Amino acid sequence: MTITKSKPGDTAGFSRPPARQELAGARSRLAGRVRRTPVIKLVELQDTLGIEIYVKCENQQVTGAFKARGALNAVLSMRPEERSAGVATHSSGNHGAALAWAASQVGTSARIVMPHDAVSCKRDAVRRHGGEVIDCGSDHRDRVATLERVVAETGAAAIPPFDDARVIAGQATVTWEFLEQCPELDWLIVPLGGGGLLSGAILAARERRASLRIVGIEPKGADEAKRSLEAGTRLERDIVQTIADGLRAPVSDTTFSIIRSGVEDLVAVSDTAILAAAQWALSIPRLLLEPSGAVGLAALFGRTLPFRPKAKVGVVLSGGNLDFGSDAFRLMQAQGAGVPG
Amino acid sequence: MTITKSKPGDTAGFSRPPARQELAGARSRLAGRVRRTPVIKLVELQDTLGIEIYVKCENQQVTGAFKARGALNAVLSMRPEERSAGVATHSSGNHGAALAWAASQVGTSARIVMPHDAVSCKRDAVRRHGGEVIDCGSDHRDRVATLERVVAETGAAAIPPFDDARVIAGQATVTWEFLEQCPELDWLIVPLGGGGLLSGAILAARERRASLRIVGIEPKGADEAKRSLEAGTRLERDIVQTIADGLRAPVSDTTFSIIRSGVEDLVAVSDTAILAAAQWALSIPRLLLEPSGAVGLAALFGRTLPFRPKAKVGVVLSGGNLDFGSDAFRLMQAQGAGVPG
Repeated sequence: MTITKSKPGDTAGFSRPPARQELAGARSRLAGRVRRTPVIKLVELQDTLGIEIYVKCENQQVTGAFKARGALNAVLSMRPEERSAGVATHSSGNHGAALAWAASQVGTSARIVMPHDAVSCKRDAVRRHGGEVIDCGSDHRDRVATLERVVAETGAAAIPPFDDARVIAGQATVTWEFLEQCPELDWLIVPLGGGGLLSGAILAARERRASLRIVGIEPKGADEAKRSLEAGTRLERDIVQTIADGLRAPVSDTTFSIIRSGVEDLVAVSDTAILAAAQWALSIPRLLLEPSGAVGLAALFGRTLPFRPKAKVGVVLSGGNLDFGSDAFRLMQAQGAGVPG
Repeated sequence: MTITKSKPGDTAGFSRPPARQELAGARSRLAGRVRRTPVIKLVELQDTLGIEIYVKCENQQVTGAFKARGALNAVLSMRPEERSAGVATHSSGNHGAALAWAASQVGTSARIVMPHDAVSCKRDAVRRHGGEVIDCGSDHRDRVATLERVVAETGAAAIPPFDDARVIAGQATVTWEFLEQCPELDWLIVPLGGGGLLSGAILAARERRASLRIVGIEPKGADEAKRSLEAGTRLERDIVQTIADGLRAPVSDTTFSIIRSGVEDLVAVSDTAILAAAQWALSIPRLLLEPSGAVGLAALFGRTLPFRPKAKVGVVLSGGNLDFGSDAFRLMQAQGAGVPG
C-alpha cells in the first residue's frame, strides 16, 4: 500500500522512517490536540496471568482509534497551500475517519475512498467529521485507482495510512505517552497491520526506554509480517481473511525495515481468540474494543510470551470502533465472559 | 430502604453520616484495592457546550460501577468474626455484584437477594464473583422480607446499598480521587438514586474543595429527592418508572440530610434524554455506560445548569453494566450518534 509513490499531486518523499526531530515535532504538534488517553491497570488479570498488565486506551482516542494522531500530525506538518485543495486517502476505516477529523481541525476538506463493504459505523464516522465518502470496490487495485482519479481531479494531497514519516511520527506518540505514564514497562504489546503503530512504538522506545521489549500481534489470517520476519524478506499474500478489519493491510518496505530492526517477536492470534478477548474486555473491565483493538489481549490470553513473573506488560488497545450491527459483535456475544483460553 | 434497622444479626448503628476520620479511613483502606479510575476530558463537547468537561470513569471501576468502593470499605471495616458467616444484601444490581466481589476479596461468602426481573448481566456478575443469587419478587417489601429470612437463617451480616456510614465513606473516595486528578473543578455532576454517591461527594468536597458546586441528577420517573428538596421534607412515591434501573431506590433520612446540607441543585432528566446521552457516549468517546451512568451527560445536554463560559465541570460516570440484550440497549441503538438536544 505504497500509494505515495505512484500518484500525481502528492507531497512526495515521505515513504521513509521519521527522523528523531520529527518524532519530537509530532509530540509538540499534537500536545493538547489529541487526547492523552488513560492507562488502566487490569487488576482483574493479575492473579490469573501472574503479571502486571497496563492498557493504553487508544480506543478512547478522538475518532475512536490511535489513527487520529498520525493523520493530524501529517495535516499539521503541511503548509496551508499544500492542503488548500483538501486531503484524500483510501481506507477501510479508522484512518479515513481520522483524516476527515484532522482536515476539519485545520479547515480543509477530506475525500475518503472506501470499499463498499467497509464497516458501517466507520463510514458514518467519516461523514460525521465532514469527510466525503467515495465508494470503490473491495479490491486493492480498485482502491488505489479510485484514489489516483480523485487526486488527479481535485488536486487533493494524498495522506497514506502508514507508509509516511509524518504518520509514523504521529503514531509514535502513543508509546511516548505510555512510557511517560508507566516509565517502568518491561514489555509492550502492539497490534500490527500496516505497521505504523508498531514502527512508531519501536522508534519512541529508542528515545525513552531502550530496554523495552516490543511484540507485534497480527491476526492469523493476515500474518505476512510474521512470515516475512521468519523468511528474512518481505513476503506478500493474496488472500487476507480476518475479522480484524483494521489489520488487513500489509506492511510496507519502510515499516517492515523499522519493525525488523527493533521488534522482540511477532505473534499471530486466531479470530476466535480475538473475539473472546474483545468479549472479555467488554464484559469485565467494560472496555469497548473493535476486533483489531483486542489482538494484544488475545495474545496475553494465549500465554505464549515468555514473561517473567510480575513483569510489567503494556498493551495498546488501538481502536474501539465496534459496529453493533456487525458479525463481529454477534460472534462476540456468543462467547462467555470468563477469561478465555 | 433502611434495612439496617429492622433485621437481626447485623452490625447496627451505621445508618448515619460517616465522621471525618471515617472518610480518611476509607481512603487508605481502599488505596490499591479498587481502581483509580481514569478521568477523560471530553474535547468533543467543548465547542458545542462552551465549557470544559471532565468525566470520571467509574464505569471502568472493578465490577463496572463505583459500588465496589462502598462495599469493599464496609467489608474491610468489619472484624473477621463479624463477617465469618458471610455478608448479604438485597440489590437489583450493582451493589449486589460489588458486595459479592468485596466478600471474595476477604474470603467470605455473599448472599444477594435479587428481584427475578433484575438485569441479566447483573445477575451473572454476582455469580461470576462467587456470590449466591437468591430470588425474590420485585416488590420492595418482598426484597426486605427475603433478606431478613436469609440473615436469620445464616447469620450473615447485612450491608445496605447506601444507608450506611461505611458505604457512604467508600463512595466518597470517588470525589476525593476526582479532586486529586482535577483540583480546579468548578462543578460536579453526580447521579442520584439512594444518595450514597452524592452524599459521599458532598462530604469529600467539604474536605478538599469547599467551593465545588455539586448537582445531583435523578431520572424524572424517580425524582422524589428533587421533590423532597423543593418541599423541604422527605417525600416518598409509590410508583417508580425509569430505564435507569440503578437509580430507582429512594434516598434515606441519612443521605437526604447530607444532600440537603450541601447540594447546589437537583435536576431531573427524562428517559429519552438518558438514552440519547448513553448512545452519544458509546458512539463518540466510545464509553460504555448503563443508563444510570449517563444521567450526568443527559443533564449537560439539557443545557439548564448556569455554568459560566469555560467552567470546569466534572461528571461522574457511575456505571457501565449495560446489558446488550436489554430494551435499554435496543432503544439506545435507535438514537442517532450526534449531540442530543
